[in-house]
Amino acid sequence: MSYHKPEAKTVQDLKDIAQKLRIHSINATQASKSGHPTSCASLAEIMSVLFFQQLRLNVKHPRDPSSDRFILSKGHAAPILYAAWAEAGLFPIEDLNNLRKIDSDLEGHPTPRLNFIDVGTGSLGQGVAVGAGMAYVGKNYDKADYRTYVVVGDGESAEGSVWESLHFAGHYKLDNLCVIFDVNRLGQSEATSLQHKLDVYRDRLEAFGFNAVVVDGHDVEELCKAFHCAGITKSKPTAIIAKTFKGKDFPNIEDADNWHGKPLGDKAAQVIKHLEGLIVNDKVKLTPKPVSKSGAAPEVDISNVKLSSPPSYKLGDSIATRLAYGTALAKIGKNNDRVIALDGDTKNSTYSDKLKNLFPERYIECFIAEQNLVGVAVGAACRRRTVAFVSTFATFFTRAFDQIRMGAISQTNVNFVGSHCGCSIGEDGPSQMGLEDIAMFRTIPGSTIFYPSDAVSTERAVELAANTKGVCFIRTSRPNTAVIYDNEEPFTIGRGKVVRQKSSDEVLLIGAGITLYECLAAADQLEKSCITVRVIDPFTIKPLDAGLIIEHGKQCGGRVVVVEDHYQQGGLGEAVLSALAGERNFVVKHLYVPTVPRSGPPSVLIDMFGISARHIVNAVNELIKE
Amino acid sequence: MSYHKPEAKTVQDLKDIAQKLRIHSINATQASKSGHPTSCASLAEIMSVLFFQQLRLNVKHPRDPSSDRFILSKGHAAPILYAAWAEAGLFPIEDLNNLRKIDSDLEGHPTPRLNFIDVGTGSLGQGVAVGAGMAYVGKNYDKADYRTYVVVGDGESAEGSVWESLHFAGHYKLDNLCVIFDVNRLGQSEATSLQHKLDVYRDRLEAFGFNAVVVDGHDVEELCKAFHCAGITKSKPTAIIAKTFKGKDFPNIEDADNWHGKPLGDKAAQVIKHLEGLIVNDKVKLTPKPVSKSGAAPEVDISNVKLSSPPSYKLGDSIATRLAYGTALAKIGKNNDRVIALDGDTKNSTYSDKLKNLFPERYIECFIAEQNLVGVAVGAACRRRTVAFVSTFATFFTRAFDQIRMGAISQTNVNFVGSHCGCSIGEDGPSQMGLEDIAMFRTIPGSTIFYPSDAVSTERAVELAANTKGVCFIRTSRPNTAVIYDNEEPFTIGRGKVVRQKSSDEVLLIGAGITLYECLAAADQLEKSCITVRVIDPFTIKPLDAGLIIEHGKQCGGRVVVVEDHYQQGGLGEAVLSALAGERNFVVKHLYVPTVPRSGPPSVLIDMFGISARHIVNAVNELIKE
Repeated sequence: MSYHKPEAKTVQDLKDIAQKLRIHSINATQASKSGHPTSCASLAEIMSVLFFQQLRLNVKHPRDPSSDRFILSKGHAAPILYAAWAEAGLFPIEDLNNLRKIDSDLEGHPTPRLNFIDVGTGSLGQGVAVGAGMAYVGKNYDKADYRTYVVVGDGESAEGSVWESLHFAGHYKLDNLCVIFDVNRLGQSEATSLQHKLDVYRDRLEAFGFNAVVVDGHDVEELCKAFHCAGITKSKPTAIIAKTFKGKDFPNIEDADNWHGKPLGDKAAQVIKHLEGLIVNDKVKLTPKPVSKSGAAPEVDISNVKLSSPPSYKLGDSIATRLAYGTALAKIGKNNDRVIALDGDTKNSTYSDKLKNLFPERYIECFIAEQNLVGVAVGAACRRRTVAFVSTFATFFTRAFDQIRMGAISQTNVNFVGSHCGCSIGEDGPSQMGLEDIAMFRTIPGSTIFYPSDAVSTERAVELAANTKGVCFIRTSRPNTAVIYDNEEPFTIGRGKVVRQKSSDEVLLIGAGITLYECLAAADQLEKSCITVRVIDPFTIKPLDAGLIIEHGKQCGGRVVVVEDHYQQGGLGEAVLSALAGERNFVVKHLYVPTVPRSGPPSVLIDMFGISARHIVNAVNELIKE
Repeated sequence: MSYHKPEAKTVQDLKDIAQKLRIHSINATQASKSGHPTSCASLAEIMSVLFFQQLRLNVKHPRDPSSDRFILSKGHAAPILYAAWAEAGLFPIEDLNNLRKIDSDLEGHPTPRLNFIDVGTGSLGQGVAVGAGMAYVGKNYDKADYRTYVVVGDGESAEGSVWESLHFAGHYKLDNLCVIFDVNRLGQSEATSLQHKLDVYRDRLEAFGFNAVVVDGHDVEELCKAFHCAGITKSKPTAIIAKTFKGKDFPNIEDADNWHGKPLGDKAAQVIKHLEGLIVNDKVKLTPKPVSKSGAAPEVDISNVKLSSPPSYKLGDSIATRLAYGTALAKIGKNNDRVIALDGDTKNSTYSDKLKNLFPERYIECFIAEQNLVGVAVGAACRRRTVAFVSTFATFFTRAFDQIRMGAISQTNVNFVGSHCGCSIGEDGPSQMGLEDIAMFRTIPGSTIFYPSDAVSTERAVELAANTKGVCFIRTSRPNTAVIYDNEEPFTIGRGKVVRQKSSDEVLLIGAGITLYECLAAADQLEKSCITVRVIDPFTIKPLDAGLIIEHGKQCGGRVVVVEDHYQQGGLGEAVLSALAGERNFVVKHLYVPTVPRSGPPSVLIDMFGISARHIVNAVNELIKE
């Protein structure tokens, strides 16, 4: 496919559109009295060429699975993205003046409340991972023609997450991915560290496995040629390193300090007049290219994912929930060929390798780079192309908290599975122990948190997660635990199980994972002293079965002991306290890991850090004395 | 300084020590029945040359401020680090067999419970940032001779945080930093993505501003030469890219899959026999070089840091707490020349630029790379060399949750300041709103969390944080808020303030930051209906003044309303619920941001998301009716 220079008229039209996009960006930020017009201006020619010469879009149905993907990683340039879609005909130009208004979805940074946005951006450095996930799916699962474009700011390219993703894209030879670096030299508070050292960007990108092309980012012809080059480059993703100027074509503002994130105020009229003077044809109108018909994406159905066979354990069998996760993952993988797993080189610990062993092509090894791991999954799950399960040690998801947070804003349905929770992992020590993971995932709006205690409930948690909207988190444990549920036991999100009960019960115990077994052991011990206690397995921590806890808590005299292999804050204990906040006449003892644990045998640590049966017995005795 | 090849005997001694380190690593992991002997083996010659030919150490006082720094970023190779210190004479070799035991500080991954460890490692990819922080201090503040060495695994070099830090070190020309890449080809569950492509490592490192030297990592002479080269290279940090083999010299295990993180079991005796056969002189004994006397680090006193002048506001003045932070930072900077600030290109929003304006050299711009930002601060604060304040938008600390978590394991005293909390930031939208930051920082063991509501209390929070051990977090707000405290008002960690009180109070309101003012406005409105309420400003969320809340809550009939500009989970509300867990007869209404907010004016958002005075009034009325 040889390169055909665009006609002179097309070039001029693209230039004119770029200036119109600048003007729209100024007008919108004037109307909102806030926003980033100068960060838009550096991008104007890039956006013009992308939207009106390059991207194959279905403007009527922006989420057409066969259309090219576009991610504005530098989300603060949202006004020019909105302007491009308005110019493309998706909505009236006048709507741009609703930017940042309370009743408009044209927010300060893009979110999928808009039908032309796949993921929220605005926390920087996350777009390439998402784009890489989309490109991976396009190349390997959809095997479709659509291409993925990501615009990255030079400031945000300091984020390590960007380099994780570039490495990933290079490693997997994602030649359907094109990353455009808008190198406008200026950050928020000072110049970027690399300023206009384009050769440094080129050297780095080439070393990371990219076809790297340096262009004048304000020259539409150079941009057209670079995108063509990206399109014909095989076995490598392409990076277009665009030398640009912040506030380009804004007289006295272009390339100047102290103009980040500010509308032009009383300078706006004069700048707009100047920009209008640069436009040759103010009636210019171009349409984006249509979506490729020949290389369309296949229809995909990811609804109603089921375990291929029900759990098959014997009561009392001793199986780690992390292993049951792997078993269940393989089962739902058999049921639906869009179930995929991603892991960060811990697959033989989390047991995500169970899917890889059956379907090697449906496992994506992301190596030790958790931010990219999460971002790729978010991208892979976009437009409902896959059911993505992401696993690593629970605590290493802290590495990607920001990505998970943005995942919620992105309305992602990714499922996270964190193994090796709590001090019960033992000798590896505190750096490997997930002790804040429930707290983290609980803060994610709309999240569902499963904390299954045995293999049967774990398999059902996996099946439920696969069909649940929003972020799901499944917390799995390293030690073996006994199977306590029949294979036929039904599980529902937000419904706990009373696993031990007598009418004489004086205290309600709530535990999950290994602490459920400590509760049961404590109950046995207490019974020897003629004290009976009720035990609840909450199954999901969010939503928590508040009704069940209140009902049984009342039956136990309002005495509750919650025990968890987690720090005090934000975990099961505080979830229970929140559930009981509106109830008078409850008293709760909360047993948790009070400080940084250490290396040692699991059983010793559980006792040393206060969450063993012995401590539960003591707590019960104290409560009864109360 | 020309290179003198080490004598043949030294070379042989270093080889022999390397084999001894391998043997110690095997023995220790045999004793603990867990651990990573093969990951130690790839490092043996590197450790031998570092400890017995390169590092200048004070073995009697490992934290001597003038000694070279060493960070084992691949913390799972802890046994060989312990072995090196034992061989150096710090403790008996036999102690190595206490590895991972409950009563030994020789944990599975290194922590500063050991006097020769500066920071905890084991969560991968964090060592270079810490080392860069130490090197920055050594070069720019201590102006001392000590050098910093960081050993990085090839698997962990996939972490983007590593590349953030490499860029930082290159940008600031930290020629006193040497990063050794142990490229042993194998990760945990499969080969690394780059395997032994040493040229790719070299190209990347050169592009990131390093003097990059490729060596055979098992050749002590090549290593000696490379370290010499590192020592004489000016204006650039050096990377030594060492080609190594996992399980080196372990017959049938070297370079083989499936040997990650496993003791050798019944193969140990045979491997040790083989290794012993490779040792020429089994009585070999070398001593580390002594610390440089001429280039010693200066004495530093960072105790008792004070505001250079007390707060100076008028009651009712309207000042954002983020601005008061900047003012206070500059004041403590005037008082102590080891107060430093670090920021990620948000200094004109967080107001950390107030210190930069006064003392440019004490501000470290870390650009948009929050993981490195936090890691550099942790490194800079090690050995009590600086009082480090790190600022960015509160929500962007989620990017560095893992680094902060490891900071607690590292016993760091870094102070974090997060601005732009909550939906009260307004039009920028949810990606920029800190709504989970309190939850995150509360999970950090030993952390102190300040949430000052006015300028006076903010200044005192900064002063207190500067003198408080452990992680401190100060949450600052974007909107202006009224000064409500006298300049002389004393503030104490863990002590709240009753800011409105009558004997007739029926409900206790608890708010902080902007919601404290909503509580006060609600109190005014309620008083018009002859309902009086008490209002508490907690000042610190952790520790929370439980006694004050219980005392005043009881006086208000056990009726409490907590209001916060934060999600439900893990914030002020659940902190209050935890404080009240042991109390019967309380009922708490918790007002919080229930879902992902949107762009809009702050006052509209506060009301739309349920935390305005109007909602507080409603909550009070409902409670009273109860």
